[in-house]
Amino acid sequence: QWMMLDWKPKRPDMLVDPFGLGRIVQDGLVFRQNFSIRSYEIGADRTASIETLMNHLQETALNHVKSAGLLNDGFGRTPEMYKRNLIWVVAKMQVLVNRYPTWGDTVEVNTWVSRSGKNGMRRDWLISDCETGEILTRASSVWVMMNKKTRKLSKIPDEVRNEIEPHFVDSAPVIEEDDRKLRKLDEDTADFIRKGLAPRWNDLDVNQHVNNVKYIGWILESAPAEILETQELSALTLEYRRECGRDSVLQSLTAVDHLENEGGAQCQHLLRLEDGAEIVRGRTEWRPKNAGKYGMTTPGEDTD
Amino acid sequence: QWMMLDWKPKRPDMLVDPFGLGRIVQDGLVFRQNFSIRSYEIGADRTASIETLMNHLQETALNHVKSAGLLNDGFGRTPEMYKRNLIWVVAKMQVLVNRYPTWGDTVEVNTWVSRSGKNGMRRDWLISDCETGEILTRASSVWVMMNKKTRKLSKIPDEVRNEIEPHFVDSAPVIEEDDRKLRKLDEDTADFIRKGLAPRWNDLDVNQHVNNVKYIGWILESAPAEILETQELSALTLEYRRECGRDSVLQSLTAVDHLENEGGAQCQHLLRLEDGAEIVRGRTEWRPKNAGKYGMTTPGEDTD
Repeated sequence: QWMMLDWKPKRPDMLVDPFGLGRIVQDGLVFRQNFSIRSYEIGADRTASIETLMNHLQETALNHVKSAGLLNDGFGRTPEMYKRNLIWVVAKMQVLVNRYPTWGDTVEVNTWVSRSGKNGMRRDWLISDCETGEILTRASSVWVMMNKKTRKLSKIPDEVRNEIEPHFVDSAPVIEEDDRKLRKLDEDTADFIRKGLAPRWNDLDVNQHVNNVKYIGWILESAPAEILETQELSALTLEYRRECGRDSVLQSLTAVDHLENEGGAQCQHLLRLEDGAEIVRGRTEWRPKNAGKYGMTTPGEDTD
Repeated sequence: QWMMLDWKPKRPDMLVDPFGLGRIVQDGLVFRQNFSIRSYEIGADRTASIETLMNHLQETALNHVKSAGLLNDGFGRTPEMYKRNLIWVVAKMQVLVNRYPTWGDTVEVNTWVSRSGKNGMRRDWLISDCETGEILTRASSVWVMMNKKTRKLSKIPDEVRNEIEPHFVDSAPVIEEDDRKLRKLDEDTADFIRKGLAPRWNDLDVNQHVNNVKYIGWILESAPAEILETQELSALTLEYRRECGRDSVLQSLTAVDHLENEGGAQCQHLLRLEDGAEIVRGRTEWRPKNAGKYGMTTPGEDTD
């Protein structure tokens, strides 16, 4: 899981970025990094996969924390969080994709953190096309505090709040929060079930937890081939319910609600342990390929 | 699969590389590209995975071809190959890893092609640490020609040879070829069998074939956890026998030969279809973690 400090104690000046490792911009509150899309990050459609986009979100969030010098043990905590054994965990993630980039495209990712309610933090991202400035993807996540030992959620203590608040950006979310309740699926309500999903050694992060991005891969394991092949994912909402460790065996459940008029689809998803304990609830929305506002591609054109 | 033209008709001057997309160097025959290792490319050991290294090999090979303006339909062919419906397919791959880079490291990959016997082409790679110049990984592959329609192997026609030979680098292989025969495993000789491995939509490349790099992941699916957790892969040999399409279901077989004295291990591998048809034979060698010549790491040190 992404367990890290989304926090920045210093306000370094703008830094040069000779190795594409990203840098802090805008008064030290926004982290910016460019990515050129690599051949192995695209799929049969020749466009970047949703996993690739989420990897870029993860990478920029971690680099943001790292440039603050606070990554340390992989949890990265303010001094007061460390004293109290508190870590950040992600509770919710929303992604809206306008257009997927393709091999050789360079995208710019901007990310920052802000307040979310009384006891949370929001991290937002904007991914844009470096050449045209067009916004390709908007993403927003909500983080809460957990006690590292008891694994229980915690309020943000005043001492920690004082440490982190000066570093929040005061801005509206890049995505209006999707408040529609995510359904809890079961054998009866799911249309597709894929069982026996187990983490491989390479799916584990340095804390021996399953990497968050892996979840979306498992969720799509139970999505029907018809949708994966004819549609592209336009929106994604994930609610993280429970941690998943190295010995977990998961089931992926999907229910498909076809949307009549537009030719798109909406799906409900659940990842659960074999004993039924919920790991992640999700919702995905799909549109016909190349039907997006900016979704038309010109195959065969080589701009080299 | 990697089916592409490893060939370069022009000799462009050295190009600048503002977006980290790589460039042609050394008289137009060597392609060079830098990669900064991203957080999602490392595993529980905090080092890059073998899949990551192989992704970088694939990316530089494709970019080498792309910078020659010959990628086109994803097969990329010289005019004479196109006339004759010939494509390149990879027959063998060898990788030797001295040391795995970690998150934030920048590596430089150099790749070039040369003659291999009468009817083959060799593509070699050197991966080095950008900061120290230390060689991290050496890799070598052998490619042969296949008729795109009949899927049969072909000799290199003289007309094609005349097109490609001027572009070969005249150099010794970066790895001495490992001529030890790869054993054919079966139920009786394998120690571990993992069944039911099926490509996901995202594992397919633009030609609807399984990406070569995916194979190493499947091979490691049948390697025992004990080895994956205590050892690191130091050498890899793969022999590609047959194509694997989108509807294939595979079995992964592994036989473990422990090497007594050094604490390392050697494994034989086979990926096969359920009807027994061989897809890939392989051999892996392993050494205890942090025991490599350059394998010592200093955990917890932050060079930021």
